[in-house]
Amino acid sequence: MTTANTKTDIRRAEPGDASGRRLRIGIVGGTGYTGVELLRLLAAHPNADLKAITSRKEAGMPVAEMFPSLRGRVGIAFSDPASAALTECDVVFFATPHGVAMDAAPGLLEAGVRLIDLAADFRLRDPAEFERWYKMPHACPALLEEAVYGLPEVNRAAIRSARIIGLPGCYPTSVQLGYKPLLAAGLVDPLHLIADCKSGVSGAGRKAEVGTLFSEASDSLKAYGVSGHRHHPEIVQGLRRVAGGDVGLVFTPHLTPMIRGIHSTLYARITKEADFQQLFEDHYRGEPFVDVMPAGSMPDTRSVRGANTCRIAVHRPQGGDTLTVLSVIDNLVKGAAGQAVQNMNLMFDLPEDAGLTQIALLP
Amino acid sequence: MTTANTKTDIRRAEPGDASGRRLRIGIVGGTGYTGVELLRLLAAHPNADLKAITSRKEAGMPVAEMFPSLRGRVGIAFSDPASAALTECDVVFFATPHGVAMDAAPGLLEAGVRLIDLAADFRLRDPAEFERWYKMPHACPALLEEAVYGLPEVNRAAIRSARIIGLPGCYPTSVQLGYKPLLAAGLVDPLHLIADCKSGVSGAGRKAEVGTLFSEASDSLKAYGVSGHRHHPEIVQGLRRVAGGDVGLVFTPHLTPMIRGIHSTLYARITKEADFQQLFEDHYRGEPFVDVMPAGSMPDTRSVRGANTCRIAVHRPQGGDTLTVLSVIDNLVKGAAGQAVQNMNLMFDLPEDAGLTQIALLP
Amino acid sequence: MTTANTKTDIRRAEPGDASGRRLRIGIVGGTGYTGVELLRLLAAHPNADLKAITSRKEAGMPVAEMFPSLRGRVGIAFSDPASAALTECDVVFFATPHGVAMDAAPGLLEAGVRLIDLAADFRLRDPAEFERWYKMPHACPALLEEAVYGLPEVNRAAIRSARIIGLPGCYPTSVQLGYKPLLAAGLVDPLHLIADCKSGVSGAGRKAEVGTLFSEASDSLKAYGVSGHRHHPEIVQGLRRVAGGDVGLVFTPHLTPMIRGIHSTLYARITKEADFQQLFEDHYRGEPFVDVMPAGSMPDTRSVRGANTCRIAVHRPQGGDTLTVLSVIDNLVKGAAGQAVQNMNLMFDLPEDAGLTQIALLP
Amino acid sequence: MTTANTKTDIRRAEPGDASGRRLRIGIVGGTGYTGVELLRLLAAHPNADLKAITSRKEAGMPVAEMFPSLRGRVGIAFSDPASAALTECDVVFFATPHGVAMDAAPGLLEAGVRLIDLAADFRLRDPAEFERWYKMPHACPALLEEAVYGLPEVNRAAIRSARIIGLPGCYPTSVQLGYKPLLAAGLVDPLHLIADCKSGVSGAGRKAEVGTLFSEASDSLKAYGVSGHRHHPEIVQGLRRVAGGDVGLVFTPHLTPMIRGIHSTLYARITKEADFQQLFEDHYRGEPFVDVMPAGSMPDTRSVRGANTCRIAVHRPQGGDTLTVLSVIDNLVKGAAGQAVQNMNLMFDLPEDAGLTQIALLP
Repeated sequence: MTTANTKTDIRRAEPGDASGRRLRIGIVGGTGYTGVELLRLLAAHPNADLKAITSRKEAGMPVAEMFPSLRGRVGIAFSDPASAALTECDVVFFATPHGVAMDAAPGLLEAGVRLIDLAADFRLRDPAEFERWYKMPHACPALLEEAVYGLPEVNRAAIRSARIIGLPGCYPTSVQLGYKPLLAAGLVDPLHLIADCKSGVSGAGRKAEVGTLFSEASDSLKAYGVSGHRHHPEIVQGLRRVAGGDVGLVFTPHLTPMIRGIHSTLYARITKEADFQQLFEDHYRGEPFVDVMPAGSMPDTRSVRGANTCRIAVHRPQGGDTLTVLSVIDNLVKGAAGQAVQNMNLMFDLPEDAGLTQIALLP
Repeated sequence: MTTANTKTDIRRAEPGDASGRRLRIGIVGGTGYTGVELLRLLAAHPNADLKAITSRKEAGMPVAEMFPSLRGRVGIAFSDPASAALTECDVVFFATPHGVAMDAAPGLLEAGVRLIDLAADFRLRDPAEFERWYKMPHACPALLEEAVYGLPEVNRAAIRSARIIGLPGCYPTSVQLGYKPLLAAGLVDPLHLIADCKSGVSGAGRKAEVGTLFSEASDSLKAYGVSGHRHHPEIVQGLRRVAGGDVGLVFTPHLTPMIRGIHSTLYARITKEADFQQLFEDHYRGEPFVDVMPAGSMPDTRSVRGANTCRIAVHRPQGGDTLTVLSVIDNLVKGAAGQAVQNMNLMFDLPEDAGLTQIALLP
Repeated sequence: MTTANTKTDIRRAEPGDASGRRLRIGIVGGTGYTGVELLRLLAAHPNADLKAITSRKEAGMPVAEMFPSLRGRVGIAFSDPASAALTECDVVFFATPHGVAMDAAPGLLEAGVRLIDLAADFRLRDPAEFERWYKMPHACPALLEEAVYGLPEVNRAAIRSARIIGLPGCYPTSVQLGYKPLLAAGLVDPLHLIADCKSGVSGAGRKAEVGTLFSEASDSLKAYGVSGHRHHPEIVQGLRRVAGGDVGLVFTPHLTPMIRGIHSTLYARITKEADFQQLFEDHYRGEPFVDVMPAGSMPDTRSVRGANTCRIAVHRPQGGDTLTVLSVIDNLVKGAAGQAVQNMNLMFDLPEDAGLTQIALLP
Repeated sequence: MTTANTKTDIRRAEPGDASGRRLRIGIVGGTGYTGVELLRLLAAHPNADLKAITSRKEAGMPVAEMFPSLRGRVGIAFSDPASAALTECDVVFFATPHGVAMDAAPGLLEAGVRLIDLAADFRLRDPAEFERWYKMPHACPALLEEAVYGLPEVNRAAIRSARIIGLPGCYPTSVQLGYKPLLAAGLVDPLHLIADCKSGVSGAGRKAEVGTLFSEASDSLKAYGVSGHRHHPEIVQGLRRVAGGDVGLVFTPHLTPMIRGIHSTLYARITKEADFQQLFEDHYRGEPFVDVMPAGSMPDTRSVRGANTCRIAVHRPQGGDTLTVLSVIDNLVKGAAGQAVQNMNLMFDLPEDAGLTQIALLP
């Protein structure tokens, strides 16, 4: 049992397609990595007018002073959240710590603004689960029910009409896209999945912490959150939906010495034979941002650096009973800001790839 | 004595400006880093039709097989240089080792094709100097005379009408742009310049060599070519032209553990007082790809990663008699492929920034 | 069924223990990473006299000219393999490509020299298996039978009296040490093991190859050899021995952007309950170079950088039916040169940790 | 005018030299990078007994829990500075922020303890200069007068009898050692020196700060402190002493993406001809930790990674009037902890290289 996937409805940009529609856009909390990545994408988006970007701490500072890469491209300054004219926006992105979006959501919705939350406030359907993992009660459980999980490859139709998007986490995006064809078709044991995931350091955000200092994280590698990680319930929730039943998952995230990139190595025991390469190709045919690679491929994370693409390869080592799926994304693009823009495009009936055609930076 | 700088004539892209003009483009030698970077830029260029890309060794292999980052974006395969229809192109880029472009130039010019050489064949005006540094006689000294040195900030007018462009090297681009305002105004001692330059490893190209292996070049730093480097005569030639007289330069390149980026730290002894910050701002006002930063700034190379920008800051440490100019570029973009496209835009009367508006990837 | 582990017999260095015994040592093929690492360790070993180090290509060049880190510490030059007085050595290390040691072995053994091969010539017991994976017939199958697999934690007694050591590969060392307590005790399903391994780039050696260039391997991550890797049969052979029966293994190596280090993340399905933390601590108690970390630990590879240590942690995520074992080593030390010296110490009845007490370099 | 250099008096360790003398050692502030590096060196030092290591914040935590690289090698826990028995030590190292050592110094000296401060409290001779750069009045100007600047190559004799050592900073060590032969011999213009220095990130310490996060500092490079850096007055003070007169210096530090290492590229205008290679070799002959490389060499920082060595090469590019000196150290060893141990060895009449014979880790 899979979700309705309205791929026949996918629209891509045509020449001359930037038809003049302008969206007024607000960003709350723009000083982190997902914030600056949103700015990079939106500054080049043919339909986006950046109206406000807030930061309590940096109010008044020109954005391009903090991020010189945006000099000449983003002219506005950070404004105080209190005074920012967010209610005049068509859509507001929350690139904030967990807990901020859910407080602001009711007011913005009332003003007719649509919300895309890049944090976790609207990811988990169950308020109790949210409270367990994020150590705070949910501020608006009613809205949680309305919110749509912003993974277009699963939820495209619902995203189009959503008022609130809970954007998937970076690990969950790569893991769900990798397992989806197998679980949807019921070909593997859903109770013994193993996701061994490797992330670049930017996934930890732009907080000053010892563990992600260059001298700590460089030239080394380690697992973390082995016994429990906030993305675990989110992944399981998503996989259950695709599988139409219970899912058991061992999830091991690793911190690796690169800036961007997630490489998920996914293991699943085969329960029913199939041409798995064909299955993946069929499943994702037409998807603008999922690239099923030829048999035998082993994608590197740099092949998606800066691009809104998930590249996937499926292997069956030595013809055994276990499949190995390799799924790579840029955690800040398809794993965050790019996926957020993809959601925005769907919500406002723009071509799904508007402003998202950047080619990966290689080398 | 400076060169005629026709900045009043700079044209930037306007909405709807991609007026339909299509250029037929060939690339000779597309398997190196400048080659794949050209592909990244041209695949997204509104006026570019990639007609042929050659590689003797990889003829027949789809480009996107070698560089998966281009999957879905570049559909053609490498073709054999002998059979490629280069003479039907409007412009051919040479992303080859030194010595290839000069052999092919006469034939292509005769066929009405214009040439942009990213290697060194058409950089040095003096054939003897070329032979001394590149250990081969120049194949067409007559064309050398005609060739234009492709640094738009110095040679914009000449580039427009050029048939052959000798594109500046990466170090020379950052060093010349950094010193130019000072030498053109005659404010520093031109005989005792010191350019201490730090380059990412991609500057060494995509050749299999022990010295640039990850395990050799990572987590370490060293100088090289201290007693002599091929870019020295090129830089001196360019600076002499700007200074209108003799130039003495100590040039120290360093290999540093990053993929892309050049950081040139330039020292010059003041001979005449001036408001140096103002001088730089005035000098580069209107230039689309040179960003003079506010006083006190210290640009990092990542602020131009993937972008065709040179960021410059000028300092006068402790009010002394020596200026320190910081000049950063991405060696593969403003130092190679991006500058090549900028030249192409000028040569074919396109907006100078057509296809070159990528924002730097940060972090 | 485990192997006889004579841990009661382990001897560590005492103050004043460098009792004067001097070993005459030869190294064949000293220009690679395992070679220079052997030199680093042996130059500081209290009982080692380096007599000869060979390199066909670099014969005559002082070792310290190629590796300036050894200036003042290693005084000899590379000599031609043909003329090197290897037969006068007590022990000769082969830090060569596969196939070199097996050709030289008979002659050296006849001269009374003992051999430690860091390549694969004497790892696989079955000559057919060797031929299948290394694409050459085995030159001396008889000696293969005599050779001892140099993993002291499994084979300590046999190593003491061995004339030929086939030193384990780097992946095999970390995987075998991680699984050993579980398989020896028969507590997990041996037929469905999954080893997800991450290696630094030095594991690929000091060969000039495009794939391991800094600009290719930096800031990126990828799997390789997913469908088959030479270390797979070696690991399976070792695990079968420990398990006393059939073993099924999915082995996924990954190339990660660090110089040294292997992080093996090992998954096994529990078939019999136990206190797994206690099991590991008991199993490795007294081992000088295996460090079982406290419950909940997640070792980083830098904690063993430059040290002959394997650090292991065992986890049971969310109390489920799958164990996750984390096992880290420095691929050039416990995964190669350090383990080679450990074998030498055992073979010549020196304290097992003689010359191997370096503390990891952190940060 | 150079300083008295008692090189005839240098003593190196002989076999059996660990003559049994045991030093009781305290470390104040052991949670930073210079602290853990001290621990690495002292844990392997033949004469060192680590008695106490303090940390207000981590009191009670076993040292090896914070730094797993020390498991099995350092058995003690951090203790509270108030209760630590520092007065019973022979020597106490301060690996603290600036301002801590000067407060504790009087009490410890009174108890007969000798002090080695790795911070800046005892580096600058002039209390006003200290206050200007470190924004606090000096707590004990009288002791400042007594303190000895711990650069053995300049101050060996004074260090032997010193009660307080102000250990040089990392940049100052590499710059002073590089310029010393030239200034001592009066062969270059002392008023126009240019030191272009590149440092690894560990030089910034183990503080949680955004600027030194992996995602900020990796794959990028920038200058900092161009207009003024605390090491400037320290370097000038040292060079003035060697030159016997005024010194003018432009000093540009750069942050580079490596963990350890400083590469100083030093420029000086020749005022008197000499055989500069010979000069450097003669000047440093017999120095245990300064390695003058052969003419034409270009040392990389990894050649000293983890070692207490400064490698120097002198160049005269194109036979011009400017010398380029390359000077590399490991900022945490010869630039901090190693130099501290070297000072300790001198102060307690141990062989100067006791505990300092580690070979650099390469690759």
